[in-house]
Amino acid sequence: MAKTAVVIIDMLNTYDHQDADALVPSVEQALPAMIRLLEEARRRGLPVIYVNDNFGKWRSHHGEILEAALTGPHAHLVEPLRPDEDSYFIVKARHSAFYETPLAYLLGTLGVGHLVLCGQVTEQCVLYSALDAHIRHLSVTVARDAVAHIHPDLADAAVNMMEINMAARIVPAAEAFT
Amino acid sequence: MAKTAVVIIDMLNTYDHQDADALVPSVEQALPAMIRLLEEARRRGLPVIYVNDNFGKWRSHHGEILEAALTGPHAHLVEPLRPDEDSYFIVKARHSAFYETPLAYLLGTLGVGHLVLCGQVTEQCVLYSALDAHIRHLSVTVARDAVAHIHPDLADAAVNMMEINMAARIVPAAEAFT
Amino acid sequence: MAKTAVVIIDMLNTYDHQDADALVPSVEQALPAMIRLLEEARRRGLPVIYVNDNFGKWRSHHGEILEAALTGPHAHLVEPLRPDEDSYFIVKARHSAFYETPLAYLLGTLGVGHLVLCGQVTEQCVLYSALDAHIRHLSVTVARDAVAHIHPDLADAAVNMMEINMAARIVPAAEAFT
Amino acid sequence: MAKTAVVIIDMLNTYDHQDADALVPSVEQALPAMIRLLEEARRRGLPVIYVNDNFGKWRSHHGEILEAALTGPHAHLVEPLRPDEDSYFIVKARHSAFYETPLAYLLGTLGVGHLVLCGQVTEQCVLYSALDAHIRHLSVTVARDAVAHIHPDLADAAVNMMEINMAARIVPAAEAFT
Repeated sequence: MAKTAVVIIDMLNTYDHQDADALVPSVEQALPAMIRLLEEARRRGLPVIYVNDNFGKWRSHHGEILEAALTGPHAHLVEPLRPDEDSYFIVKARHSAFYETPLAYLLGTLGVGHLVLCGQVTEQCVLYSALDAHIRHLSVTVARDAVAHIHPDLADAAVNMMEINMAARIVPAAEAFT
Repeated sequence: MAKTAVVIIDMLNTYDHQDADALVPSVEQALPAMIRLLEEARRRGLPVIYVNDNFGKWRSHHGEILEAALTGPHAHLVEPLRPDEDSYFIVKARHSAFYETPLAYLLGTLGVGHLVLCGQVTEQCVLYSALDAHIRHLSVTVARDAVAHIHPDLADAAVNMMEINMAARIVPAAEAFT
Repeated sequence: MAKTAVVIIDMLNTYDHQDADALVPSVEQALPAMIRLLEEARRRGLPVIYVNDNFGKWRSHHGEILEAALTGPHAHLVEPLRPDEDSYFIVKARHSAFYETPLAYLLGTLGVGHLVLCGQVTEQCVLYSALDAHIRHLSVTVARDAVAHIHPDLADAAVNMMEINMAARIVPAAEAFT
Repeated sequence: MAKTAVVIIDMLNTYDHQDADALVPSVEQALPAMIRLLEEARRRGLPVIYVNDNFGKWRSHHGEILEAALTGPHAHLVEPLRPDEDSYFIVKARHSAFYETPLAYLLGTLGVGHLVLCGQVTEQCVLYSALDAHIRHLSVTVARDAVAHIHPDLADAAVNMMEINMAARIVPAAEAFT
């Protein structure tokens, strides 16, 4: 299997958007698995790449995005996932982690051919990023208990799409690196 | 509303892949609406853009792709949709109509800001192309009776995703230009 | 004429690479025109976009890139050009300002159709960015006295290429907005 | 060294544009070296990839582009270079062979890491394609006697840029594969 990296999507978040009410309980449920996934990736020395929306704030850097998220009312969803010194960070402007970002270039530089995806939203940015990885012949694992959704039905369908149509491996976070 | 083009996806097809048994009946059902959609687009003078997989045949041009499809056992699904003199044609190598193709460039040249999507497969290339259009701030209409699926449940979910998460308008082909 | 933005290329720099000896005198000469160009752009309320190499430091944000440049031996070439509160900032990994970056997306969001280029290196990143702008149908002005080079002959040729083959307007910085 | 492919740029051409008078004599001079380069590539079983402008004719396929070029007054510049059964063909809409085309994807599929460039115009599409190859970490050889120019001075500068700034190998066509 190719070299693996963990990609954690849109978790530096102030949760002040309209779907937050539906999203937050799912994030709370997925948070422990995300934390363990990052810990295990770091223990194994694998790259951990934060890909995060800039929320239209082109003047901010990721320190400011993190700070805004950490001082908001949902800081408890951000604090346990804060990047460490070795984390990579890529800002995205739109949904997919790959669209008009240097993610594909960074993965090539690192020699990564396999992504473990976690974060939010299962039926949106996670799905779109899985597609854009598959289209680039990267293999994809989705840590099923470490992704959060807004619409549970669409999330289930998205997971099925990733498994059936994008050849993604769907496993619990605890089995992501096995 | 911005200038409209019809994008017809992957309909020049030999249907010799493993999912054909599930796909063909859905294509047969959607075919009349596709035919009427193209007729109406041409009557209105709107651009009709065929975006079609090259099936790994980099040496073929679209005439050969069409010919192969027209001489296969499912020619009745291809013949009524054959491109005319004014049709545009873009070859894609992977799922999305936009990935590593000049489609975005062509749409910019034509001044098109609104796509009417038809073709196949609803829960795959149609969904992915809708996403890549939405990400580029193009507005999208899906002609619901003019798209064909393999998995009806995933197709329904895909249509919901396009409507809820990509702001797509979901209408019958007969209302696509209204 | 379309809305204008200034793009300043690779000026947050530690000048510790092998070509620095040839580059620094040219930067010193171009610096006053760059300063005036940014001042005038800000006076007019035009977007100023810093596009800067990340020097392979994917973990750094632009504050750190700026800080490194400001504490090096060539801080006098950086200090007068430091971004202000309203500056945009885009990190690039490779030569062109457009390659695998969100610059094209940001320009679209801002409604910008005309770029005034300054910075370094005339015959490298400035040339490549002018090309990638021209290819996208953005119009380009090069502030001739506000770009710095390594090889004067190649810089002259690059300016000719931009003028003849990319339809760029070549003017002194003082005339960039006229 | 990585697997090699020959990329021949914009040689299916009607030469009815405004720079043709300056270009044609240079093409006539470079033609024999191009012919030998293609012959040698085919003898060695290397992929030969035609990347050609579509001249805004989105409805044409490459057979029609070839036919138009073969029936024009400069057919003698096209006939000896016509694609064979094994040639790959990619249509480009703008200058660089890589911009909004599937070339990078095709090269990845073929496992190609080294391009030998020939064709026209040295100081335009050849230069831009060399840049876009270098940016993608592909290595580049330019067959110096198998590229044609409009402006000899800019062509010399372009060759210097490719050698100095893009790490291209500049050799006669006869040494392109050694």
